[in-house]
Amino acid sequence: MLKEYLVKDIPKLKIHGRTTTCREPLTLFWTASGFECNVSGTELSVEVEVSYDTFEPWISYTVNGDWVGRQMLVKGRYWIPLFRGMSPDKIKNVRFYKDLQAMSDDGNSYIHIHALRLDGTFYPVEEKKLKLEFIGDSITSGEGLFGAREEEDWIPMFFSSLRDYACLTAKKLDAEYRVFSQSGWGVLSAWDNNVNGALPKHYREICSLQPGEKNERLGGNAAHDFTSWQPDYVIVNLGTNDASAFEQPEWIDEKTGRHYKMHKNSDGSYLKEDIEAFQTAVKDFLGIIRACNPKAHIIWCYGMLGLNLQMSICRAVFEYIDETEDRAVSYLQLPNMNESTVGSRSHPGYLCHMQAAEVLCQYIGDLIAKKGRFYSD
Amino acid sequence: MLKEYLVKDIPKLKIHGRTTTCREPLTLFWTASGFECNVSGTELSVEVEVSYDTFEPWISYTVNGDWVGRQMLVKGRYWIPLFRGMSPDKIKNVRFYKDLQAMSDDGNSYIHIHALRLDGTFYPVEEKKLKLEFIGDSITSGEGLFGAREEEDWIPMFFSSLRDYACLTAKKLDAEYRVFSQSGWGVLSAWDNNVNGALPKHYREICSLQPGEKNERLGGNAAHDFTSWQPDYVIVNLGTNDASAFEQPEWIDEKTGRHYKMHKNSDGSYLKEDIEAFQTAVKDFLGIIRACNPKAHIIWCYGMLGLNLQMSICRAVFEYIDETEDRAVSYLQLPNMNESTVGSRSHPGYLCHMQAAEVLCQYIGDLIAKKGRFYSD
Amino acid sequence: MLKEYLVKDIPKLKIHGRTTTCREPLTLFWTASGFECNVSGTELSVEVEVSYDTFEPWISYTVNGDWVGRQMLVKGRYWIPLFRGMSPDKIKNVRFYKDLQAMSDDGNSYIHIHALRLDGTFYPVEEKKLKLEFIGDSITSGEGLFGAREEEDWIPMFFSSLRDYACLTAKKLDAEYRVFSQSGWGVLSAWDNNVNGALPKHYREICSLQPGEKNERLGGNAAHDFTSWQPDYVIVNLGTNDASAFEQPEWIDEKTGRHYKMHKNSDGSYLKEDIEAFQTAVKDFLGIIRACNPKAHIIWCYGMLGLNLQMSICRAVFEYIDETEDRAVSYLQLPNMNESTVGSRSHPGYLCHMQAAEVLCQYIGDLIAKKGRFYSD
Amino acid sequence: MLKEYLVKDIPKLKIHGRTTTCREPLTLFWTASGFECNVSGTELSVEVEVSYDTFEPWISYTVNGDWVGRQMLVKGRYWIPLFRGMSPDKIKNVRFYKDLQAMSDDGNSYIHIHALRLDGTFYPVEEKKLKLEFIGDSITSGEGLFGAREEEDWIPMFFSSLRDYACLTAKKLDAEYRVFSQSGWGVLSAWDNNVNGALPKHYREICSLQPGEKNERLGGNAAHDFTSWQPDYVIVNLGTNDASAFEQPEWIDEKTGRHYKMHKNSDGSYLKEDIEAFQTAVKDFLGIIRACNPKAHIIWCYGMLGLNLQMSICRAVFEYIDETEDRAVSYLQLPNMNESTVGSRSHPGYLCHMQAAEVLCQYIGDLIAKKGRFYSD
Repeated sequence: MLKEYLVKDIPKLKIHGRTTTCREPLTLFWTASGFECNVSGTELSVEVEVSYDTFEPWISYTVNGDWVGRQMLVKGRYWIPLFRGMSPDKIKNVRFYKDLQAMSDDGNSYIHIHALRLDGTFYPVEEKKLKLEFIGDSITSGEGLFGAREEEDWIPMFFSSLRDYACLTAKKLDAEYRVFSQSGWGVLSAWDNNVNGALPKHYREICSLQPGEKNERLGGNAAHDFTSWQPDYVIVNLGTNDASAFEQPEWIDEKTGRHYKMHKNSDGSYLKEDIEAFQTAVKDFLGIIRACNPKAHIIWCYGMLGLNLQMSICRAVFEYIDETEDRAVSYLQLPNMNESTVGSRSHPGYLCHMQAAEVLCQYIGDLIAKKGRFYSD
Repeated sequence: MLKEYLVKDIPKLKIHGRTTTCREPLTLFWTASGFECNVSGTELSVEVEVSYDTFEPWISYTVNGDWVGRQMLVKGRYWIPLFRGMSPDKIKNVRFYKDLQAMSDDGNSYIHIHALRLDGTFYPVEEKKLKLEFIGDSITSGEGLFGAREEEDWIPMFFSSLRDYACLTAKKLDAEYRVFSQSGWGVLSAWDNNVNGALPKHYREICSLQPGEKNERLGGNAAHDFTSWQPDYVIVNLGTNDASAFEQPEWIDEKTGRHYKMHKNSDGSYLKEDIEAFQTAVKDFLGIIRACNPKAHIIWCYGMLGLNLQMSICRAVFEYIDETEDRAVSYLQLPNMNESTVGSRSHPGYLCHMQAAEVLCQYIGDLIAKKGRFYSD
Repeated sequence: MLKEYLVKDIPKLKIHGRTTTCREPLTLFWTASGFECNVSGTELSVEVEVSYDTFEPWISYTVNGDWVGRQMLVKGRYWIPLFRGMSPDKIKNVRFYKDLQAMSDDGNSYIHIHALRLDGTFYPVEEKKLKLEFIGDSITSGEGLFGAREEEDWIPMFFSSLRDYACLTAKKLDAEYRVFSQSGWGVLSAWDNNVNGALPKHYREICSLQPGEKNERLGGNAAHDFTSWQPDYVIVNLGTNDASAFEQPEWIDEKTGRHYKMHKNSDGSYLKEDIEAFQTAVKDFLGIIRACNPKAHIIWCYGMLGLNLQMSICRAVFEYIDETEDRAVSYLQLPNMNESTVGSRSHPGYLCHMQAAEVLCQYIGDLIAKKGRFYSD
Repeated sequence: MLKEYLVKDIPKLKIHGRTTTCREPLTLFWTASGFECNVSGTELSVEVEVSYDTFEPWISYTVNGDWVGRQMLVKGRYWIPLFRGMSPDKIKNVRFYKDLQAMSDDGNSYIHIHALRLDGTFYPVEEKKLKLEFIGDSITSGEGLFGAREEEDWIPMFFSSLRDYACLTAKKLDAEYRVFSQSGWGVLSAWDNNVNGALPKHYREICSLQPGEKNERLGGNAAHDFTSWQPDYVIVNLGTNDASAFEQPEWIDEKTGRHYKMHKNSDGSYLKEDIEAFQTAVKDFLGIIRACNPKAHIIWCYGMLGLNLQMSICRAVFEYIDETEDRAVSYLQLPNMNESTVGSRSHPGYLCHMQAAEVLCQYIGDLIAKKGRFYSD
């Protein structure tokens, strides 16, 4: 017999991704946030409530680890079927993913999960031994992983959580993972010099980059309780948009009238003062991450869209290590996209994300193997 | 401005798959049936009407040739969004696919297409130069192309039109294609000796294997007008379930009380009389296909799930050629599934279908290259 | 201390390939013929005696299964070093391969093995549980597996035993194997209608296609003792040159003045009488192979250079089975070469041979798995 | 008619690799050194003179770019056949490679090239537009690219020039290249703390790491004339053995009695003083390379056998850039070996070298594309 269960009444439901403690309903903010359950029964549906002004959310889900569905969500409150007609006694694992990132450009773009409908029983979802957090930009938001190569529209359809290197890495390492990312953003500024597009400013809150009053009401602006979920590894994949800012015109803050721009010298090199500001921002962000995750190893990754700022990132990482004597921090280069690994919107495609996941998995595997000694040699 | 268009009022809409002439609404019967359109505008939705008793339909669709969505359909009449927020002036190609086969086990499982909603203009869909028809069983219905390897449930979720070798072959050859297939069925009988499960019996009608009064009303039992669509190549991929019938117990027709079974000799070989009946059925089916498609080259394929009946199929094909002097008929072995290419439900997986598509494309490409001479040497 | 051992004095030396019983010296006739040994010691050399008029032999060898050397052999008697400086106590496996086929065009092209020089001990080479014989043309002789794509010279440099599908199949199945092959030859005639180029005529002798008085003296024309080595599987890969004969001008036997040619009808199809002659030749050859190898399963393979004669080969194989009730015979299609798998001289390259080996291995593996029942269903 | 040509009499012969100006005979010192020629004619041989005490040289060669032969060389002066029976008029490109590195452990291991024997004409070898120099250790010497995985002997058989990432990179970029490498050596010391195993000490001479009086006589100890060949890119792949020295016992210089060792702290981290010495050595070597190659871009690569010293290498490279304002210097991480890419002797195998070549080619390609601006951002 099909029965409806409010999320709050399913203690065995595993919630993925940074969110508030509210379960009536559960709000999904970030890429790859969602839920996971182990259930018997023949049929499962989920009741969602969806809102947006400009950017509609998309979702994907897996059954027993294999991707079976992906769809655009319309506005409103309604049921989405997840499976039907399965053997009643076998226990099925279902994982539901928000495909779209938290949208700093749409303060009304949310998925809420109200309830599940099932004719079986919920079973516990086993805790993974490894936890990973991924912090990044469009690459980590999975932009370009759907769509034909020639696509240029910046729309939710082309964002994917499941083809992303973060998901692939977690799957390969059998890890639980969370994503904290925003397309176009960087460490010091966004790709267009907009200094509001700096991810570190939002790291301590649940999801404060989602703008507006509704987010306040939903609790996205509240402080995140880091003790509730401590990753073993924090993978930062930022710097690509900071490099872009050197190539873009200045950005003017309309509120203050202040102008912002990263400059290059006449010979094409980066202006020393601006690079230093960037490096300071990297070091400061490492400090914030460390403060929030005292035991995590932090890996700063770079390179999937070129190596322009590699030297500055390395310098900043190494200076942070020297200054803090915090050695659980390191730098890792990821495979650069090329003609055969490009996806849509000139972003890394599935092949490039698979290569990146392989490099990350080997690197993290090696770190795990030599635990007990210092990481940064 | 979004505007609704009834299917009958969109002459530029390309309809795929065998169906009736009715457009109010359009009924989708077969795997990979659906529609295709070229449109400007920012947003497109489709109004479907879905019914089923046991087996719910699934759909997939592509935008500019790239797969972006796949979902289970619930019962009722409602709108499904296909894209949003795209550049208004660019022309987008959208192809909508029924993922599920025509269901001989559910006389109420249909998708009807009523209307499209668009804020742009419809443009013509260019006619392909090559047309292919695929006739087959579960392999051609794409069974096993979704789902984890351990899955055993026979449910619509695990059927895929888009990962199928038929779709892959058509895409690679830039061809239009149709699928006429039924899981579990064969040339002479189904896998369990049920003689109703013989595809040739239904080839001349639009979709007469879908049972019941509703199908009659929808026109599925009407004669198919073969002049309306003539394939250049007919690819038959049958025999796998006929081989299985030799291993299964007899099937009893409850109406007549008659018993049916394919037999093996005590040494494990196939009984001569039964093999001859099978071979006659193959030859008869070739005759039917030829009668309906006078100019097509017919390729009988076999091997993706083993070669048990290869010799009998070849004998039948060659005898047909001798007896009719019809030389536009040939036999082609397809790659056998193995441990690294298996999908779910012990069926060929995506890798195996890709290998099969490659073999077929090369074979058809060679035939095209030497057109003008006889095919069967 | 390095010591020289005559071949006849090394009972633990494993001899590969059809040859005479003479060991002073051992004569290598066929592709992949050679020797294999397990030895301790730091250093191993082999004393060869090489002759040829036009086509110089090439050799390859492996150490512990891995290919380490390949070279052209000059005329004369001399030592070839195989390894040096290895750990004295470890036992090394060395396998020495003739890369060049027996040369019907050069009655003086031979490698003789006189002795080995070693500072260690010979150990037994374990008998493989599976034995394979490969009968074929240029494909089985490994033509085109070395050399740039644009190469057109028909020279020994471009023949390889080790990259060949025969070697790859044997390695994957952990089998001992022999090759009986001749480039340009067929079942009924060579590619140019020369009826002397028919492999069946030479199957009962050790190596009677090597012409001339020297071969007589060496014993190549003597009857082969089939009881000395019985394969479990005989893989015949012939027909490609018979197909070619239909496209070539007639061949005139200078001794008798007789003309020979395979004909096509005006519509491009093959002349019935000629096809029947070909089919008779296939059946006769199957009879010869069966007479010589009473317990072997015979697999007739075809397709690496196109499927032109597939139907005729299948007909002949099936008629042979019907007429003889010999069911340990079957037909298998191999992967066709394409643009990405071509080697030099427009012949299948390494990728194509690897694909063929994979298909063969799966097929033979399946046959082994169902031993006890008849093979040809 | 076959005719012998002394090397000195073949001005069109292209000489590869660092060597002296002597051509009677030409001496080959380094990995991948050798010669290249474009010739008509049917037959080509080379007269070599080979000596060694412990480590025999091996050679490989290509015909029209495709590898056709590889063999161990015995002592003495003799002719090696390269091709026979080719079309006389076509121009063939032949490239002869020393597979073995210069041997610091065998002062008598040399290949000398005296003459070529040809029945055709020599044609010019076109100058490549791009020149690369590779400086490295065992990885760059191609150790482990031949031989079974279980091999542990340190012998010439397992060294390969042609499967090496240096060769693969040069081929893909259509570049001329040279290799300056020594297995087991590093920037500051060899893997075992032996401070004589430091490559920078030998960079200014032709081949001064080859020990003994014979090398003096051959001119290996003479200063190298860098003006004779200026690379566009110098790729340094060193640090792996320096990392190893931290794990090994001290090395005692028998002449001076001095002890040498890289130390680790009790917590497993590297001792600061030793790391500083290593970094100084890296910077000094960059200075030497720059002095010798004023216009080259220098890429320091690392990572094919782990990233232990990555941070120290990066620090040293960046400090060098700061101190010298020399911006044509950068750092690049190469793909780490894993279980599926390992070769023999626990060294990177062919797959790993192919991956490394791909990363290098993309990186160098990007640098070439943005020439005119500074490289190190």
